[in-house]
Amino acid sequence: MPKNFITFRDLTKEEYLFLFDRTRTLKHERYRHRYQRDHLRGRPIAVLFSKPSTRTRVSFECAITELGGHAIIIHLGDSQWARGEPLSHSARVFSRYVSGIVIRHTKEEDLVELAKHASIPVVNALTDERHPCQVLADVFTIIERIDGNELGSQTVAWIGDGGNMANTWLEAAAVLGFGLNLACPPGYLPDEGIAKRAAADNPRVKFMGSPLEAVKGATVVTTDVFTSMGKEAERAKRLKDFKGYRVDSALMAKARPKALFLHCLPAHPGEEVTEEVLESPASVIFDEAENRLHAQKALLEYLIPAK
Amino acid sequence: MPKNFITFRDLTKEEYLFLFDRTRTLKHERYRHRYQRDHLRGRPIAVLFSKPSTRTRVSFECAITELGGHAIIIHLGDSQWARGEPLSHSARVFSRYVSGIVIRHTKEEDLVELAKHASIPVVNALTDERHPCQVLADVFTIIERIDGNELGSQTVAWIGDGGNMANTWLEAAAVLGFGLNLACPPGYLPDEGIAKRAAADNPRVKFMGSPLEAVKGATVVTTDVFTSMGKEAERAKRLKDFKGYRVDSALMAKARPKALFLHCLPAHPGEEVTEEVLESPASVIFDEAENRLHAQKALLEYLIPAK
Amino acid sequence: MPKNFITFRDLTKEEYLFLFDRTRTLKHERYRHRYQRDHLRGRPIAVLFSKPSTRTRVSFECAITELGGHAIIIHLGDSQWARGEPLSHSARVFSRYVSGIVIRHTKEEDLVELAKHASIPVVNALTDERHPCQVLADVFTIIERIDGNELGSQTVAWIGDGGNMANTWLEAAAVLGFGLNLACPPGYLPDEGIAKRAAADNPRVKFMGSPLEAVKGATVVTTDVFTSMGKEAERAKRLKDFKGYRVDSALMAKARPKALFLHCLPAHPGEEVTEEVLESPASVIFDEAENRLHAQKALLEYLIPAK
Repeated sequence: MPKNFITFRDLTKEEYLFLFDRTRTLKHERYRHRYQRDHLRGRPIAVLFSKPSTRTRVSFECAITELGGHAIIIHLGDSQWARGEPLSHSARVFSRYVSGIVIRHTKEEDLVELAKHASIPVVNALTDERHPCQVLADVFTIIERIDGNELGSQTVAWIGDGGNMANTWLEAAAVLGFGLNLACPPGYLPDEGIAKRAAADNPRVKFMGSPLEAVKGATVVTTDVFTSMGKEAERAKRLKDFKGYRVDSALMAKARPKALFLHCLPAHPGEEVTEEVLESPASVIFDEAENRLHAQKALLEYLIPAK
Repeated sequence: MPKNFITFRDLTKEEYLFLFDRTRTLKHERYRHRYQRDHLRGRPIAVLFSKPSTRTRVSFECAITELGGHAIIIHLGDSQWARGEPLSHSARVFSRYVSGIVIRHTKEEDLVELAKHASIPVVNALTDERHPCQVLADVFTIIERIDGNELGSQTVAWIGDGGNMANTWLEAAAVLGFGLNLACPPGYLPDEGIAKRAAADNPRVKFMGSPLEAVKGATVVTTDVFTSMGKEAERAKRLKDFKGYRVDSALMAKARPKALFLHCLPAHPGEEVTEEVLESPASVIFDEAENRLHAQKALLEYLIPAK
Repeated sequence: MPKNFITFRDLTKEEYLFLFDRTRTLKHERYRHRYQRDHLRGRPIAVLFSKPSTRTRVSFECAITELGGHAIIIHLGDSQWARGEPLSHSARVFSRYVSGIVIRHTKEEDLVELAKHASIPVVNALTDERHPCQVLADVFTIIERIDGNELGSQTVAWIGDGGNMANTWLEAAAVLGFGLNLACPPGYLPDEGIAKRAAADNPRVKFMGSPLEAVKGATVVTTDVFTSMGKEAERAKRLKDFKGYRVDSALMAKARPKALFLHCLPAHPGEEVTEEVLESPASVIFDEAENRLHAQKALLEYLIPAK
């Protein structure tokens, strides 16, 4: 049975600690221009997109390339999937050709169906429900700044949309045990099942009434765009509904001293976060983007054994 | 003069026997994680698409990668071809840059024009008229299951649309000498010129009045979707016209014992073939898909000499 | 500070002489199947397109591949840029992942903005204003045919649209010191600022009243399509306005004996140039296309140091 990475709950805390260590090593090695090209030497990995992407595309294509592999980039609109082949067939065909499937897709249930029939790992590179690779990089970005043993003492404040990022932070908090304060506008709460299960597993998962409450005691503040891809039609309504959820310097000042600011990008400066915060010393958004590469290399190395 | 592979008649029986042997070797080597990366080491191959594709795209990109080459994937809609450059110019420009052209395109006459002006091999990866790479893999899939000398004693039953797959089976039967029984609905016959020439070359090429007649004595049963890409507007009419042409277990039972079932995929379970047949021991559809990779590697190796 | 190549003025005459020498070496080496794969060994380069392309795409993807690197091909319509991320963010994110950005884009000011924030080289692969990689290959194509010291004694006749190619020829003439006669239809003159500055730097830059005047004394005659990509709506008007600007054998006969004919392709035979000229011994259009590859390899080698 191949190991998949569809939800943050697919790996254990011990596996994450291993991955974070390995990510750190791979990052240091890359700075010295040392790569691990034997790991996937000459092996193709399918990278499937049903939504456009820059960071996900580039970070995975770089990761696979630097591990010596070859990313086959497929836009699902271009492919047979648009024509209704059963996913069970696609899964079995891909399993014959490639060593893994990385997929950015709307419906997560399709990934589960793929994984059920594939004999190779399936990696969730973003669905409407979850974004585990991003949170993997985000947690590593926090760990880079602290002593590794202190992860449990961190408190992350999630401000804004209760979408795939918030869902994944909930699962990460459940598995890794850090504190999580969420402040989401009414009507934009995370998935109820995910939230309940996370709160049951980790009493430090808390829903707060306002951004101000959420950042109190936070060592990390993070948010996402008000209007995610695919929700453009709701933009005007969302701008209204998210009033008061912008992260600005006044809000950051209420968090712990030296609290970090994270954002998975793209950011809309002036909308969900001010330009001032984005460009402040607290902001580690470009390290965070870079860490997608390193964390995903560690992940692929772990899920797809060398041959 | 470069060797091309535009129709199944472009190579001789002796060349095919060599290719099937080589395909078997490459397949075994791949299972041991041994590749032939020196063959195309660092050399770019253009892979052009004017129709969407998964299997063709992935199987060729893997084949080229595993031979050490680099596939430059171009969607023709994206390219200058949409702007009316003469094909004779494109052929000469590509010949300066890359070591071969693999092309999936509607009009086969465009491939012939390209090949006329190119100094590099042109490989037909599917046209409206023919699909020789698929039939190359299909015949290999049969050979895998029998003693190689027995190919002549096989009888393939083609059930359904007389399109590019049927045309190519006709040419393959002419060149390789196996039996071919075709059962196509009225109005969906193969190309008349191709059919006449094949029947003239091989008396065991026969048009039958019904699927039942066609499978009698068949060691292989194969079909394709009722509605190929580009024919979606005819779907309702075709569903009616193809009534009685579905491959089901009752039909398979009328073929020879242990007859194989082939399908080039994508399949529409319940339409041209039942789920029961697709998932039966007779069905070798995923081996067949995998064999695209191995057979195309053997083909590219043969057409594009190492340097 | 990384070196960029956005306008032809970004490098000095000495740097170009070095690049032309190096291009010649790389071309000879490639004919012997010797590559420089250690130069970019395993390093990803982003190649961004907001306009379709064949020659630019294939020549850059081959160049990067043959230098051992990996081209990440991104169609900007597919990417986050369509969603309004600040270019300053994209520049900083790409700088974390890849070793260089090659970009074909409408607005050159976007390239300048990218370069301002990037810590990696930015290469202009065509904008509405300029096409320096093409002219780099074009000048090399001239140099291939003459003694290298004679570049200053050449006179290039530009016939037709005063667009990005004409602008770039003006800058190349300014930097490299060869003669340039331009004959552009009224209303289709090059950028005024570029033209004035070039004429100030090089007194042999001249605007002529007709193609006939322009080719007098010319050792090279060159043109472009009447209707560039993106101007299709003006096609009928342009066909009328460009009457008399077609390069035919009669016009070529008025240039110097053995004058070369260049065209960046795609060409529309019978429109801006006759089939007879395109296929004449004077025409070096396919060498010119090939030289994109060699010249761009020299350029990338120079801008992106090995590690």
